[in-house]
This record gives sequence, C-alpha cells and structure tokens, in this order.
Amino acid sequence: MPLVRIDLGSSTDPATSSTVCDVVYDAMTSTAKVPAHDKFMVVTKHDVGDLVFPREGYLGIKYTPGIVLIQVTWNVGRGTDVKKAFYRKVADDIHAKTGIRKEDVWINLVEVSPENWSFGSGEMQYAPK
Amino acid sequence: MPLVRIDLGSSTDPATSSTVCDVVYDAMTSTAKVPAHDKFMVVTKHDVGDLVFPREGYLGIKYTPGIVLIQVTWNVGRGTDVKKAFYRKVADDIHAKTGIRKEDVWINLVEVSPENWSFGSGEMQYAPK
Amino acid sequence: MPLVRIDLGSSTDPATSSTVCDVVYDAMTSTAKVPAHDKFMVVTKHDVGDLVFPREGYLGIKYTPGIVLIQVTWNVGRGTDVKKAFYRKVADDIHAKTGIRKEDVWINLVEVSPENWSFGSGEMQYAPK
Repeated sequence: MPLVRIDLGSSTDPATSSTVCDVVYDAMTSTAKVPAHDKFMVVTKHDVGDLVFPREGYLGIKYTPGIVLIQVTWNVGRGTDVKKAFYRKVADDIHAKTGIRKEDVWINLVEVSPENWSFGSGEMQYAPK
Repeated sequence: MPLVRIDLGSSTDPATSSTVCDVVYDAMTSTAKVPAHDKFMVVTKHDVGDLVFPREGYLGIKYTPGIVLIQVTWNVGRGTDVKKAFYRKVADDIHAKTGIRKEDVWINLVEVSPENWSFGSGEMQYAPK
Repeated sequence: MPLVRIDLGSSTDPATSSTVCDVVYDAMTSTAKVPAHDKFMVVTKHDVGDLVFPREGYLGIKYTPGIVLIQVTWNVGRGTDVKKAFYRKVADDIHAKTGIRKEDVWINLVEVSPENWSFGSGEMQYAPK
C-alpha cells in the first residue's frame, strides 16, 4: 500500500539508496502494521541545486547535501504514536546502517483511503466489503 | 485537474511511455468525468534498483521490472465504482496497447479539494462561487 | 513543512530553476505563513515527452514546453484567499524574474496534518501538545 518516494543526491551510491529503501520498508512493517511484501518505492537522484534545503537549517536542525527526503503515501488511520515510532526507527536505522546523519533524514506522510489503490491487474484489492 | 505521475523503468521506449500517458488520460475522461484536455502528467524513468517492488509479489500478484507506478492526484468526490472502473480500464488498455502485463500496472490516488489547483496565469480556476 | 516538487523541462538552465525555487519559497512565506527557512524542494527535469500538457490548452490557457509543474504538500488549514494569493504571487514573480509565461505556471496543493512531518533526527516536530 504505501508508495514511498525517496529523493536524494546524485552522488549517493546504489548500496546506500538500497539500504534506505530496506530500512523504510522494515520500519513500515515493524512500527506501522504495513503488510509484509508491501514494498513499492521510487528512488530519484538529484544534482546539487535540485535537492533544496535551508542552509540556515530549520527548527534547530542543520542539513547537508546528504539529506534524504522521504515521502510516504499510505492509508489513513495511523495515530500519533505510530507515526512517532516510524520517524524514530527510520532515522535511527538509516544512520546506523548507512552513516547518513539523523538530521538529514526528512519524512512526510500523505494519507489516503483504502479504495485508492490498485496493486495490479486492474483490481481494487482493498475494496470495501 | 489531475496531476499524474508515472514512474517506470529506464529501458521503456518513448512510444510506450507516451501510450501509457494516453491510456491514463483516456481512462480518466471516459470513466471518471475528468474534463477533456485536462492532461497534465510527469513521466520519470528509473534505473534498475530505483524502481522498487516486492520480489515475492503482493496479494498474489507478481511483478517484473516492467512495473508501471501511476499516482493520480485529483479532486475528491469520485466513488468506489468510478475508481474500480478507472483501475480496470487503465490496466486493460495499457496491456492491450503496449503489451505490459496487467499485473505490472500499479495505481494510487490522492484526493484534494477543487481550490487546490491553479492551471496557469496565477488563477484559481475552480474557485468556489 | 511544505515539500515542494517542481517538474520542468530538461533545457531549463540551473539559474532559472533556482529562481523558481526562491520565488515559491518567498510566496509561501509572504502569503501563506510558511515559517522562515522552511524550504524543502525537489526539482526534476524531464525530456520532451515526459512533461505532458494538453496541446489544445485547458480552460482557455495555452501551454508551451516551458511549463513548470509545481506540487506543494503542506499543512491543512489555509483558506481560499490565501491559496489565491499564493497562486497569484508565484505566477507573477516567476514571470517577472525568469520570463517564463504566467500561463505556464501550474500549481497543485496537497494538504496533510501537522503530525505528518519529521524534519530530521527522527522527531515529530509539530506533535500535538
């Protein structure tokens, strides 16, 4: 169900971006009840200047060109505590497994209804019963 | 009104991606009352590894690197039956016209309000009256 | 808070796309109460054919390959007047500062809740109190 868009710098090596994907998937399944194998992601790499962040930082956080912007579209219904746990795990594990600074892990959630997905074959797999 | 993002593999030839765009537009207008000429789309092609899908499949559907991820942002108000018809037509027609497997046609909808669009010239064309 | 996605043609020079980013940021802060330094944007450039717009125009507006598609994800709560002022300022200032036609400035807004952001370090900075 989630569609995850990951935008990062063009100098990121493939192993690192692959690890970021794995970490986000693991965090979704372990903290937010996303089903197993529900791993659909789009990674886009950007030249310097096309990945824009505030040089002054924001809310006391400083960023570097190593920033990773993660936008997750998933079903509505997850509460504040679940979202907090998700943010925490994504940042901690990306840092632990890739060395990317926790400050550079940036996340946004977009919420939709279960009817808003077709996982292939032209079907609405989460249709209301 | 809809903004359609289409993400697919970098080996996709331009004729195929163009046909995918045409099919999605045709399905929007014929099944979901999207107005004629309301065709705004962004196609992004990705190297292997940057278009992530579950190797094990999901919900019984198996995917290949030919997967096409389609995210449509459009106005709220379309019902379940309309969405079902849209999914069906997109998958059927993409398969019929490009040979892409129906299983590889993956769709997500994001819903917004009519005020959330400017179609150019700095105006809110769908402003409330 | 806002995540701004800007999609434009591959022939756009870096100075122009950078100015577009600056204009959108300035319009967000001056018309829509987006906080200072809250500037997170992703620019993606597309070959002809991957940036799709209606050749016939839409709602009386004609487009060129110089079209700029701007999608802003930000917090819910901004009213119609604020959105109108935002559209107006973005189109006017992009035109004034880059020469891009106002008709080619296309904007979509996606609205989410304040809990849906982590600005780094694994924290929910806009958590409810």
